[in-house]
Amino acid sequence: MSLSSSGLVAALSPVAAGFDRWAQVRLERVEAALSQWVPADAPAGLGEAMRYGVLDGGKRLRPLLVLAAAESVGGHADAALRAACAVELIHAYSLVHDDMPCMDDDVLRRGKPTVHVKFGEATAMLTGDAMQALAFDVLTPDEATVPPALQAILCRLLARASGHEGMAGGQAIDLASVGRSLDETELRDMHRRKTGALLRASVQMGAACGPVDATAWDALSDYGWSVGLAFQVVDDILDVTQASETLGKTAGKDADNGKPTYVSVLGLDAARRYAAQLREQAHEALARAGLRDAGLLAVLADKVVDRQS
Amino acid sequence: MSLSSSGLVAALSPVAAGFDRWAQVRLERVEAALSQWVPADAPAGLGEAMRYGVLDGGKRLRPLLVLAAAESVGGHADAALRAACAVELIHAYSLVHDDMPCMDDDVLRRGKPTVHVKFGEATAMLTGDAMQALAFDVLTPDEATVPPALQAILCRLLARASGHEGMAGGQAIDLASVGRSLDETELRDMHRRKTGALLRASVQMGAACGPVDATAWDALSDYGWSVGLAFQVVDDILDVTQASETLGKTAGKDADNGKPTYVSVLGLDAARRYAAQLREQAHEALARAGLRDAGLLAVLADKVVDRQS
Repeated sequence: MSLSSSGLVAALSPVAAGFDRWAQVRLERVEAALSQWVPADAPAGLGEAMRYGVLDGGKRLRPLLVLAAAESVGGHADAALRAACAVELIHAYSLVHDDMPCMDDDVLRRGKPTVHVKFGEATAMLTGDAMQALAFDVLTPDEATVPPALQAILCRLLARASGHEGMAGGQAIDLASVGRSLDETELRDMHRRKTGALLRASVQMGAACGPVDATAWDALSDYGWSVGLAFQVVDDILDVTQASETLGKTAGKDADNGKPTYVSVLGLDAARRYAAQLREQAHEALARAGLRDAGLLAVLADKVVDRQS
Repeated sequence: MSLSSSGLVAALSPVAAGFDRWAQVRLERVEAALSQWVPADAPAGLGEAMRYGVLDGGKRLRPLLVLAAAESVGGHADAALRAACAVELIHAYSLVHDDMPCMDDDVLRRGKPTVHVKFGEATAMLTGDAMQALAFDVLTPDEATVPPALQAILCRLLARASGHEGMAGGQAIDLASVGRSLDETELRDMHRRKTGALLRASVQMGAACGPVDATAWDALSDYGWSVGLAFQVVDDILDVTQASETLGKTAGKDADNGKPTYVSVLGLDAARRYAAQLREQAHEALARAGLRDAGLLAVLADKVVDRQS
């Protein structure tokens, strides 16, 4: 998925072209902030491994969701930038740990050797651990640049989405599901936790940066669920329809590992229809939110479903 | 180290006897709170593994430091209990990850099989990850039981002590030091990060729960450093002088692994003198802090140095 330079979409849609320019500027800010906050000089090579694991890579969907949601509610800019980096640090740490031999045992990520291949398993584990801590560090600056009450809310949202109720819980279900058949309800529960919780938290963290009423909060949370689930359904579709080269990771891995996916449970055509339905649900939720401008979030939902990698 | 039932010390010292009663009551509260907050029903066995990793075990030195510091400044009781549990969750997660084959490869912890031996490596990694997230979750309750600004401060202190500047950074140095000779300065830097940062943060988090002036804050931070370093020096001494049975973990492991220790760098007698000196420094720091009652913290410093396991 090229969120910042999708020339074809830009040619077709002025809205998407505006989005691409917006995304490019925001992602440069996120990259600069991550580069500042992820320390090159952390001891014994840890900083190098942390930077390798999080800089210059990935779709940055979560930071874009944070920033688009924050801007849709006129949110606190520095808080939103910190939230964008924090949620990406959590995502990046989960990939570092996921790729390790005791988990998915993957050697390729974003077209590069995975962290444990390059730095060793022990360093990879510490790298992930330190990235998780850094996420909460970034959310709680000393200086009064972010109101302390907002710092607490952002930590709360991120902690709950990352832990046993969210991402880590979903990964545990994923582990336990290898070689088992899940029905669609079980599969959805797994993905709501594993990827959905952090994607929804991205939207919520952005929304929390601004004044937001209960109606908008609930609608944006629904939007986050729909986009999060759509992301996973599309991931499963791409895993069987795209080559490793396009994905920047090993294709067909889930099927080979006997992991249930939306394609294995629903079939390819139904999975595609489900992704389209989730896109509609996301747009309907935005309409309910009553925001001044939900354009960026609307395009993001489209990009998640239309992506080719 | 039996902090809650050291009959011998109690017979020798009325102050220590009072401490033991205090510690027993506080540790029961910590255990009950951890049992409430570490979920039995987290999916796919994750809750069971988390509870195995943190309940019913360990010296609980960090929670006692939090609670003693908080009580010494008349601190917010619910915030202090949450801080005590959060810091123990961080400590417990670090042990789960440390024990894994790619790190120390240890099979025995607190006299029981380590988490990866009992639940498998993948679950052990997720267990540690989820425990770290839970620590920040516990610090940021929904209900207004803890002032949000205090929630933010506690998250900040814990995040910095846990990450690359603190515990994870020290572990990276530790990894890189195997088979190398460190001088005393390098060894101290490693331990300040690896164990000292979290022990100091325990004291600071407790102190942050109450009104505390800059003088008391600095003095309590110094106390935390001294106790933290003393803890490690004594750990190194016990590693060569005690049997595995007493320690509840594999004795002589550090020496066998070619890891530099205070005993290998200073020799046993000098290490013992150093521990005594650090105890004095801790007491001097408490005298500077100007607290209404520093008795609990004073006894804790003694217990850390006098412990036999």
